[in-house]
Amino acid sequence: MAERPLAVVLASGGLDSCVATAIAATDFDLAMLHANYGQRTQARELAAFRALADHFGAGHRLVVDLPYWQQIGGSSLTDPTLPVPQDLPEQGRVPSTYVPFRNANLLAIAVAWAESLGAAAVFIGAHASDSPYPDCRPAFFAAFRRVIALGTRPESRLRLETPLIHCTKAEIVRRGIALNAPLALTWSCYQGQELACGRCHSCRLRLQAFAAAGQPDPLPYAVPVSGQ
Amino acid sequence: MAERPLAVVLASGGLDSCVATAIAATDFDLAMLHANYGQRTQARELAAFRALADHFGAGHRLVVDLPYWQQIGGSSLTDPTLPVPQDLPEQGRVPSTYVPFRNANLLAIAVAWAESLGAAAVFIGAHASDSPYPDCRPAFFAAFRRVIALGTRPESRLRLETPLIHCTKAEIVRRGIALNAPLALTWSCYQGQELACGRCHSCRLRLQAFAAAGQPDPLPYAVPVSGQ
Repeated sequence: MAERPLAVVLASGGLDSCVATAIAATDFDLAMLHANYGQRTQARELAAFRALADHFGAGHRLVVDLPYWQQIGGSSLTDPTLPVPQDLPEQGRVPSTYVPFRNANLLAIAVAWAESLGAAAVFIGAHASDSPYPDCRPAFFAAFRRVIALGTRPESRLRLETPLIHCTKAEIVRRGIALNAPLALTWSCYQGQELACGRCHSCRLRLQAFAAAGQPDPLPYAVPVSGQ
Repeated sequence: MAERPLAVVLASGGLDSCVATAIAATDFDLAMLHANYGQRTQARELAAFRALADHFGAGHRLVVDLPYWQQIGGSSLTDPTLPVPQDLPEQGRVPSTYVPFRNANLLAIAVAWAESLGAAAVFIGAHASDSPYPDCRPAFFAAFRRVIALGTRPESRLRLETPLIHCTKAEIVRRGIALNAPLALTWSCYQGQELACGRCHSCRLRLQAFAAAGQPDPLPYAVPVSGQ
């Protein structure tokens, strides 16, 4: 088999990045990158990342600790004194779970690692369709592509791939199932510990997506959820 | 005195960021940000940062540890097994001291902190004139401004200021002297420990700049240098 190019994949351990990893794995060898930034379910997300990296047989793995994100604050996802909202976010409003400029920070680390490894691409599983976060929009990633082109060595020619950017969450679930992605290993909840809470807006979006895709969510929940 | 707006300043402890801080201090209250990324002279740079933050009376200070930059590697500045070049870099070539995508990483942290603090601006002392690094060019910063505008909350309206971008190093020295910036507290050397080496290309650029500005460098050097 011919040697395949390498891609760095940002892998939170969640549903979207799992499907993005499965897409990347069809053409690339994998370098999987995970960040601990003091998010509430950090240990659980890291466990999901490790299970996914094992499943995909990633040849390169990097877990970065970003403890300063707790000092930076400004988000209910990293500040334990702020409550995590249970309702779906209002249209046109950035919710308190927004972590300031998170995707720019994660992409900057991914691009640095990719440039050092000589990788051909960076993958991120972000999608704009139901996301209230400014750093999940196609225009944000288009602008970041220009920063990559201008801010790296000319010979790096690194591509930024956002294969799910125009998908709905239900389409992501369907695509994951079609690719045989290990969705049972993923973790989406903003709040739970042993079991996903089923109530935070990340759990609700996930459950709505499985329902819309007509598939049961393989993850166990702390409360009874529809479709299980 | 009316309350002044807040600016986050990226402060390495070097000459350029010292002058950028002095410029920011004329209009803004200061939030000074420093990164330990495993650079060879990390302890010395941090000491310079602290002395500068004390001098400027910065009301907010954040020192972030980025130990994963040693895992990312790819630079003679962070990899002790690679030699630091002593010659000035060749025209049109990116030298081995380039740290992959460093400025994008530092700006991403600065913008996140600025957004959380409600700051009005981020200052960076980069300049393009004699820099061989791709992430020091005006076009890179212009592209990053667009990423900031698109990737932060719409109400943040954060400005990225690069007041030295078109200055030569000699002009930066002159500007620092005109602003009474504490240049004696700064550190530029890539290699030295107690005293600056006077031989690495950062020391050489600094010494050339003081010579061109017709001013003695107040810093002591490990070897005799012209103009002292």
